Amino acid sequence: IQRYIVTKLGEDWLFLVLLGFTMALISWSMDYASAKSLQAYKWMYVELKGNVPLQYLAWVTYPIILIVFSSLFCHLVAPQAIGSGIPELKTILRGVVLKEYLTLKAFVAKVIGLTASLGSGMPLGKEGPFVHIASICAAVLSRVLSIFTGVYENSAHVQDLLVCACAVGVGTCFAAPVGGVLFSIEVTSTYFAVRNYWRGYFAATFSAFIFRVLSVWNKDSVTITALFRTNFRMEFPFDLQELPAFAVIGISCGFLGAFFVYLNRQVVLFMRRPTALTRFLTKHRLIYPAVVTLIIATFTFPPGFGQFMAGELMPRECINSLFDNFTWTKIWRSASPPGLGRSAMWLHPHVSVFIILLLFFIMKFWMSAVSTTMPIPSGAFMPVFILGAAFGRLVGEIMATLFPNGILFDGIVYRILPGGYAVIGAAAMTGAVTHTVSTAVICFELTGQISHILPMMVAVILANMVAQGLQPSLYDSIIQVKKLPYLPELGFGHISKYNIFVEDIMVRKVKFLSPQSTYRELDLLLQSTTLKTFPLVDSKGVCLSSLELLLCFFHCDITTDATFDWPLQIKAWEEAEMDKPIDIDHIRIDPSPFQLVERTSLHKTHTLFSLLGLSHAYVTSIGKLVGVVALKEVKIFQLCNVQGASDSLTFSLSTLYFERKFIVNSVIAIWPSKHQTNISSIILYSLCEVLLMKCCFWFLSNVAS
Amino acid sequence: IQRYIVTKLGEDWLFLVLLGFTMALISWSMDYASAKSLQAYKWMYVELKGNVPLQYLAWVTYPIILIVFSSLFCHLVAPQAIGSGIPELKTILRGVVLKEYLTLKAFVAKVIGLTASLGSGMPLGKEGPFVHIASICAAVLSRVLSIFTGVYENSAHVQDLLVCACAVGVGTCFAAPVGGVLFSIEVTSTYFAVRNYWRGYFAATFSAFIFRVLSVWNKDSVTITALFRTNFRMEFPFDLQELPAFAVIGISCGFLGAFFVYLNRQVVLFMRRPTALTRFLTKHRLIYPAVVTLIIATFTFPPGFGQFMAGELMPRECINSLFDNFTWTKIWRSASPPGLGRSAMWLHPHVSVFIILLLFFIMKFWMSAVSTTMPIPSGAFMPVFILGAAFGRLVGEIMATLFPNGILFDGIVYRILPGGYAVIGAAAMTGAVTHTVSTAVICFELTGQISHILPMMVAVILANMVAQGLQPSLYDSIIQVKKLPYLPELGFGHISKYNIFVEDIMVRKVKFLSPQSTYRELDLLLQSTTLKTFPLVDSKGVCLSSLELLLCFFHCDITTDATFDWPLQIKAWEEAEMDKPIDIDHIRIDPSPFQLVERTSLHKTHTLFSLLGLSHAYVTSIGKLVGVVALKEVKIFQLCNVQGASDSLTFSLSTLYFERKFIVNSVIAIWPSKHQTNISSIILYSLCEVLLMKCCFWFLSNVAS
Repeated sequence: IQRYIVTKLGEDWLFLVLLGFTMALISWSMDYASAKSLQAYKWMYVELKGNVPLQYLAWVTYPIILIVFSSLFCHLVAPQAIGSGIPELKTILRGVVLKEYLTLKAFVAKVIGLTASLGSGMPLGKEGPFVHIASICAAVLSRVLSIFTGVYENSAHVQDLLVCACAVGVGTCFAAPVGGVLFSIEVTSTYFAVRNYWRGYFAATFSAFIFRVLSVWNKDSVTITALFRTNFRMEFPFDLQELPAFAVIGISCGFLGAFFVYLNRQVVLFMRRPTALTRFLTKHRLIYPAVVTLIIATFTFPPGFGQFMAGELMPRECINSLFDNFTWTKIWRSASPPGLGRSAMWLHPHVSVFIILLLFFIMKFWMSAVSTTMPIPSGAFMPVFILGAAFGRLVGEIMATLFPNGILFDGIVYRILPGGYAVIGAAAMTGAVTHTVSTAVICFELTGQISHILPMMVAVILANMVAQGLQPSLYDSIIQVKKLPYLPELGFGHISKYNIFVEDIMVRKVKFLSPQSTYRELDLLLQSTTLKTFPLVDSKGVCLSSLELLLCFFHCDITTDATFDWPLQIKAWEEAEMDKPIDIDHIRIDPSPFQLVERTSLHKTHTLFSLLGLSHAYVTSIGKLVGVVALKEVKIFQLCNVQGASDSLTFSLSTLYFERKFIVNSVIAIWPSKHQTNISSIILYSLCEVLLMKCCFWFLSNVAS
Repeated sequence: IQRYIVTKLGEDWLFLVLLGFTMALISWSMDYASAKSLQAYKWMYVELKGNVPLQYLAWVTYPIILIVFSSLFCHLVAPQAIGSGIPELKTILRGVVLKEYLTLKAFVAKVIGLTASLGSGMPLGKEGPFVHIASICAAVLSRVLSIFTGVYENSAHVQDLLVCACAVGVGTCFAAPVGGVLFSIEVTSTYFAVRNYWRGYFAATFSAFIFRVLSVWNKDSVTITALFRTNFRMEFPFDLQELPAFAVIGISCGFLGAFFVYLNRQVVLFMRRPTALTRFLTKHRLIYPAVVTLIIATFTFPPGFGQFMAGELMPRECINSLFDNFTWTKIWRSASPPGLGRSAMWLHPHVSVFIILLLFFIMKFWMSAVSTTMPIPSGAFMPVFILGAAFGRLVGEIMATLFPNGILFDGIVYRILPGGYAVIGAAAMTGAVTHTVSTAVICFELTGQISHILPMMVAVILANMVAQGLQPSLYDSIIQVKKLPYLPELGFGHISKYNIFVEDIMVRKVKFLSPQSTYRELDLLLQSTTLKTFPLVDSKGVCLSSLELLLCFFHCDITTDATFDWPLQIKAWEEAEMDKPIDIDHIRIDPSPFQLVERTSLHKTHTLFSLLGLSHAYVTSIGKLVGVVALKEVKIFQLCNVQGASDSLTFSLSTLYFERKFIVNSVIAIWPSKHQTNISSIILYSLCEVLLMKCCFWFLSNVAS
């Protein structure tokens, strides 16, 4: 009974509490360390006032040292720690094992590297890496706890806990438990088990709570409040007449977000292209981050160009000042009101607020897109958030200038709040880049105000519509660039997916083994393919089970020593051995491989593949093995299943696919963004598709004649 | 191309917009109508001031008429409209077809019945019925749109849209899009496709937006704000030292919520027990609602007992006054401050605020539990919300009395906000009754303030922990009472579910048909069982496909008229017909029935059943049909799989199950709450289980000796 209770008690809640506590501690100490680092940076800059060359030197070298250190550290300890980590996690949660991403080494590299990068003041975020850190933490914890109880050895269970870890990661990063859970669901999952949702809430709340309590104990704040608390009036947050402006923010942010993803990908692809420059940079890995940092720091140098783009403000100060309650166009060139604080940086004595905001936006745009490609642990969420806030603020200030006296309603004049526009812009922009709507919830939790809920939701949804139609999300883009094995989401509403069956897409020439197969056959089989899993089939062609070849080649090990002198005898013995049937008992057999029948629809297949994280399934007909479907087939068919719906054209999809592969391939190449289909993408897609179909129809008829 | 674009454009977004718009209109007009009805009710009561008997008559008859009307209307038009609707929807989304629940008739009955019940001022809510209304709306819309495009004929797609409809339902009811989406996920789903999440947001936001815009146009409010807007101070919403009080609210609400579910079920079960009284009530259906209404209205009669329980306040006024910014214990017996409004009802000149709040809570508790059992469309969310608010307020007022000067922090004294306690109590109580955490999010959206996020999340999670350990959720409780076919959630963390395989739980004696079966065999088969689906098997026992017997008995229809005069001849003809093999072409055949192999684990089986909404699956071994697993088997094994883990005891689970069914049955009977396993329930459960195991061990050994 003792052991029994320990097993029961020592289950998930202890795990979640431990995870939450660890992550809160890490998040808080990381914040603390990076804040101290930024303080030192600023102190150095202020102390050197008067001596511009020296000041420049300090301003530039400090971040370079930190970034180079971070890059070097990650490179030496664990190169897996580089980048955001969300794309990899998405792939892991899809069922693909990327073991080296969840090691203690990667954890150390990520934590130290991230602290250094955050402390450099570059436009980098901590949210993506934090999701990664939390997952490693969960994986390591589950390995530790598996000493006590066997549950943690089961991979399905560990998978469940990883989902919670993602929620904890986002939750502690922003002290936003609800938004954290939702964001992590949207970003990482295709199908979501509601039981994990509850656990995610539990862990994220606990963790966010500890995170905020730590800062109260440290006297950073008087009580638990939001991280970037705003103070807008609540009785009349906005007027209905302001809605078009919010919609404009949403739509523009959609375009800008898509462009951001595009730019980011182009930079990465450029760095991967084999030119003399990139070959040189790959050889000397530290030069790239150093140069990027140098350029960015030079641009932001406050006495130089930085004065026109509020270069002195560190990321957190940016957000706080962009969300403030003043109307900058009104106080510009007049006496500073009390409580303005760091927002004064935005008010240049000679240059208009609009130009400063616009310059800030443009400069930070490319800076963020480039700096997130540096080989260091870094996220893009925060930089994009700042970009969005700046854009929103710009629109807000324009609105405040257009309606200088505010909006009259019911006899009372309400001023326009540019800060509210900034919050909406931030949510819309991050939503567009990550293809999520829960950024709105994160925004509420970050600002502590929910009064703008409806316009914000509208803006975020509009931004998502536009961005999803144009580009994949930032994470999907990275998955594509890194060629990680991931099954994209089914487009919605297409009837074709219910009319295409497994038999249409399966590979019919299946390589298989039978219990009578000899080692020689096995050897040939292995030489002809790179697969590692084969179906085991009995003499009548009935599928028995699936086996993984891991332990197969130990059959002649025992004899090597004794028969050393008679190589010919060995040869003969080997030949004899090779003709023996294989010993199935020594092979890892999966007794229940996944079986489908020929008439299973594509929709069902896709659902099964996504949910169960399958990599392949066998197709049987009356028990006989007739084919195999792998992830690849499902993926390709999904991408071109829109074409199946265009039954008005004369040739069938399967002909197109099997005979004219190049067309399908070109479709895939042109439309890598077809991951989360939505309205605008469907419109765009269908238009282009009609064009394409026309083209290839013309092509085919011309070739035929 | 014309048709093509129409097909593409006319897909989901149009559907979602239409759905959102319709629901917003319905929600708003229902609110409007019930508000007018309540106004009339109050006006009548006020006009008759001075004549207490007449006043009493008016106070009592008005709700009785409305409730009886609602009950009668539903009974005549569509009895499916009675009750909340969420349990039925949960079952429908599970894959079970309950067609009569999604008809236009049910829609009309629900809308009219609900408006009448809401207008009566009884403690009834609109949220459950609203989910039902939205789903009917979606089902009807999809039937209408299927004229234009075939997508809406596919049941999987309609299922997806129903999920969105649930979100719209909750969203428009509270003008809470985010909370609506989350609540509907938690309440209705086990596995959730993230693509529906996006659609849910879109539809819910659109709908909530229109709902609020309608009220702005109607000049009810100046701009779009929250429904029950609060106005707490934001710079210091609460102190860390108040956290224990919040935790107490959470835990108490957990117990109270579980008790509410228990009470509600006991009332329903009592009404279903065949006694003389209930038989009489079933015969005269209108007496029960009339009597209940009479009793409740008598208790709340303001000049009578109602004065001690703020009986004059209608549900919405209750919430507004409980969430107000005053400290009632401070203003009691002193001059009313300006802006007190309806909150004055809580201040009785002779009775303490505590007693009023306590009386209100106790009286409303049983009133809500009883009134939601009346045969009218009604939800329990709002009444429970009010209960929670009252309880929270009570704790808040007690805290304000204990710390009359507020809490000193950093030299500044902060007063305690009892209103904040009320909000937290409301969220915790609804969370406990519905077993959801998203009630916290709904609360933020309802009040428009998010400053209490962390204590609220803590309270809601604590309430959930306690309540989930004690009772099933209100909806699961109704599912149990109504015996709807629903598969509960897997308990988490038990290794046993990975070690039990389908072969352990499948039914081995499968009834099947072959292409050679005669009608006589079919007839016998149908007489021997109530099943409607049979596997079709070839001569070697290989499973081909599954067929549903819907069109089977039309084989002798054509002859009934012509051979009227020769009954003997008919008989002979029939006999001859009966020996012919059945005509498979006339039967609905599912070409791809779901197949499992013997070694599929319980965990995988459960996942597949939940996700795909299966009701049964065939188990094959080397292609041969060896068994069938139905929902029932999975369910039973899940309930007792905790016992499988107790390997310290000597007899195995399967022996226990197959030989001593009564023990398992008693376990199921005792623990109907084992739906969403969590920490406290596991502890409780395992303790009881050990006891049970001991008992039956003792029993077995005594019987043996």
